[in-house]
Amino acid sequence: MSGMAREAGGARAAAVPWDNDFRWTCAGTPGWQRMNQKIRIGIVGYGNLGRGVEVAIGQNPDMSLAGIFTRRDPAAVRPLGAGVPVQPLQRIDAFADGIDVLVLCGGSRSDLPEQGPALAARFNTVDSFDTHARIPEYFDAVDRAARGQGHASIIAVGWDPGFFSLVRAYGESVLTDGATYTFWGRGVSQGHSDAIRRVPGVRAAVQYTVPVQQAIDRVRRGESPSLTTREKHTRECYVVLQEGADPVTVERAIVTMPDYFADYDTTVHFTDAATLQREHAAMPHGGFVLRTGRTGQNTPQVFEFALQLGSNPEFTACVLIAYARAAFRLAKQRRFGAHTVFDIAPGLLSPRSPAELRAQLL
Amino acid sequence: MSGMAREAGGARAAAVPWDNDFRWTCAGTPGWQRMNQKIRIGIVGYGNLGRGVEVAIGQNPDMSLAGIFTRRDPAAVRPLGAGVPVQPLQRIDAFADGIDVLVLCGGSRSDLPEQGPALAARFNTVDSFDTHARIPEYFDAVDRAARGQGHASIIAVGWDPGFFSLVRAYGESVLTDGATYTFWGRGVSQGHSDAIRRVPGVRAAVQYTVPVQQAIDRVRRGESPSLTTREKHTRECYVVLQEGADPVTVERAIVTMPDYFADYDTTVHFTDAATLQREHAAMPHGGFVLRTGRTGQNTPQVFEFALQLGSNPEFTACVLIAYARAAFRLAKQRRFGAHTVFDIAPGLLSPRSPAELRAQLL
Repeated sequence: MSGMAREAGGARAAAVPWDNDFRWTCAGTPGWQRMNQKIRIGIVGYGNLGRGVEVAIGQNPDMSLAGIFTRRDPAAVRPLGAGVPVQPLQRIDAFADGIDVLVLCGGSRSDLPEQGPALAARFNTVDSFDTHARIPEYFDAVDRAARGQGHASIIAVGWDPGFFSLVRAYGESVLTDGATYTFWGRGVSQGHSDAIRRVPGVRAAVQYTVPVQQAIDRVRRGESPSLTTREKHTRECYVVLQEGADPVTVERAIVTMPDYFADYDTTVHFTDAATLQREHAAMPHGGFVLRTGRTGQNTPQVFEFALQLGSNPEFTACVLIAYARAAFRLAKQRRFGAHTVFDIAPGLLSPRSPAELRAQLL
Repeated sequence: MSGMAREAGGARAAAVPWDNDFRWTCAGTPGWQRMNQKIRIGIVGYGNLGRGVEVAIGQNPDMSLAGIFTRRDPAAVRPLGAGVPVQPLQRIDAFADGIDVLVLCGGSRSDLPEQGPALAARFNTVDSFDTHARIPEYFDAVDRAARGQGHASIIAVGWDPGFFSLVRAYGESVLTDGATYTFWGRGVSQGHSDAIRRVPGVRAAVQYTVPVQQAIDRVRRGESPSLTTREKHTRECYVVLQEGADPVTVERAIVTMPDYFADYDTTVHFTDAATLQREHAAMPHGGFVLRTGRTGQNTPQVFEFALQLGSNPEFTACVLIAYARAAFRLAKQRRFGAHTVFDIAPGLLSPRSPAELRAQLL
């Protein structure tokens, strides 16, 4: 906290050279925050994702945590790390000189549509905006804000949208005569869990999206099947009832719910609060993207990507941090405006230099 | 063939505008090759890979085949497509006005070290140089040639090096505390097949590299095992003996061969020439890249990519063609010199515009 206060009075860093090894040269700028010459990350919003970003910064030696910014009372926020500054989001401009990239950890429904463009006008940003249908308009809003003010933003970062999107693009670019399949799970869907919690008589609930193994196997065998919604995924619900609620009524309300459950084979398990907390508090997720295609004289080819995530928010946080490194480099290269994972060369995510990547990973 | 001859007399295309949608606008240049406004690809070398590239061009509506260039007698080369021009490689400069990108389909041992830099000085190129240890020097040689003459080259394109390299880089950039594993196969290794053919008494041979399923399963479970060479892969050899050769002697010579087989569990199956041709003439390959890591409070995360290729050269050809599209765009953007897959934003591979990618694949 005291570091942040001192930083607020510091001079803005002079423009620094950018060498081939993507190393940042410190020009002796005054202020605590430049002594370690790291990429200084600010976290906006401190829920599961923000906590994941805090831990991920500690796993990346070229990064440091500049501070956490919250709309809540800062005194009510308890960072995992000792001495991590927490400040009210409304005062973030005062800390601009100590921040290279902001990681926006708010939700896509109401936080990011407002915060994304507003903060992109004042900072380099990355976010995990994940309302697929609204990405084009969100991109345009962030692009206008960032480009006009000379900042770089990368939106919709994570695994879907994110790595799954990349694999869909790589797959269809290479196997042009083919089909793409995305399967999600086994994992917790927050949206479906929330939908169950809104059913009268439900006290708590966790919903797992489960890919149908036989469907994945058919795709892997190169059958290029046409699969209905019901054939691709099933849904498993763990539900704690309110006192006196009727399980039959609740189950029927869940399995017939339009959009969320009616088109799936859904199973409902009733349980108690202690069991739900003990066995279903983790947030695993993951899934599969497959591209199958034919080349030459009808030769089958299968291109597959899979994630098995012990924690969805912790993994998403790691992806955000890797793209924060890319956003920092984009800004140094004066590539301002909004970007997506499609626009980012893979090497920009790596702490290794291009020469190291060629020698060691190619 | 006649088209190529006419092309040789055509005027060089005027500089054309490059719009946001990566579309190329034709400025009414004379000559047959500009009528369809496609990316015009030249193939250098016409073996399995060159044939794969010829087919792949036909699967990409934004591309056309400008011609095949060979060191052999052109009359001895039989393209799959009717009317495809075949020219001697030594005359390729005469066709420069009709070619946007050359796809180099020669071998890494002797063809590419010479052809890569020489042709990068006169054309935009892509190649599948795959001698991992010599990539840095090859990169430097191509970079000097291409940069000095205003051309763009992408080297070491394919699946390993290529997509497997990308996954290694993406994986370690995101899961920084972790381990990376590459398994190859089940597939035919040309290098190991060649090594067997050099054993006295061997008439023909095909060698399959086989990943050990239990090892993959241990990695997938997040055990982060230390695996020896022998624990990761086994080798299966199908061998046709010369008349009168002693199978026991041949088998011993194979399984004890240093570098190639001595460190592996190797099985040798003797067969006849007709069976080898019938059952082992295809060139399947593939494999797995896994990155496992820990996030947060020791949460396991698994990041996996897999390829199951019915034909190794046909798939590699498709990857080359997608990166040829990127090389074409790099040249339009005046990003000259050598590049690798690490330097290429994924969107540059796709025939879709950035806006389409965001709306449809993100």
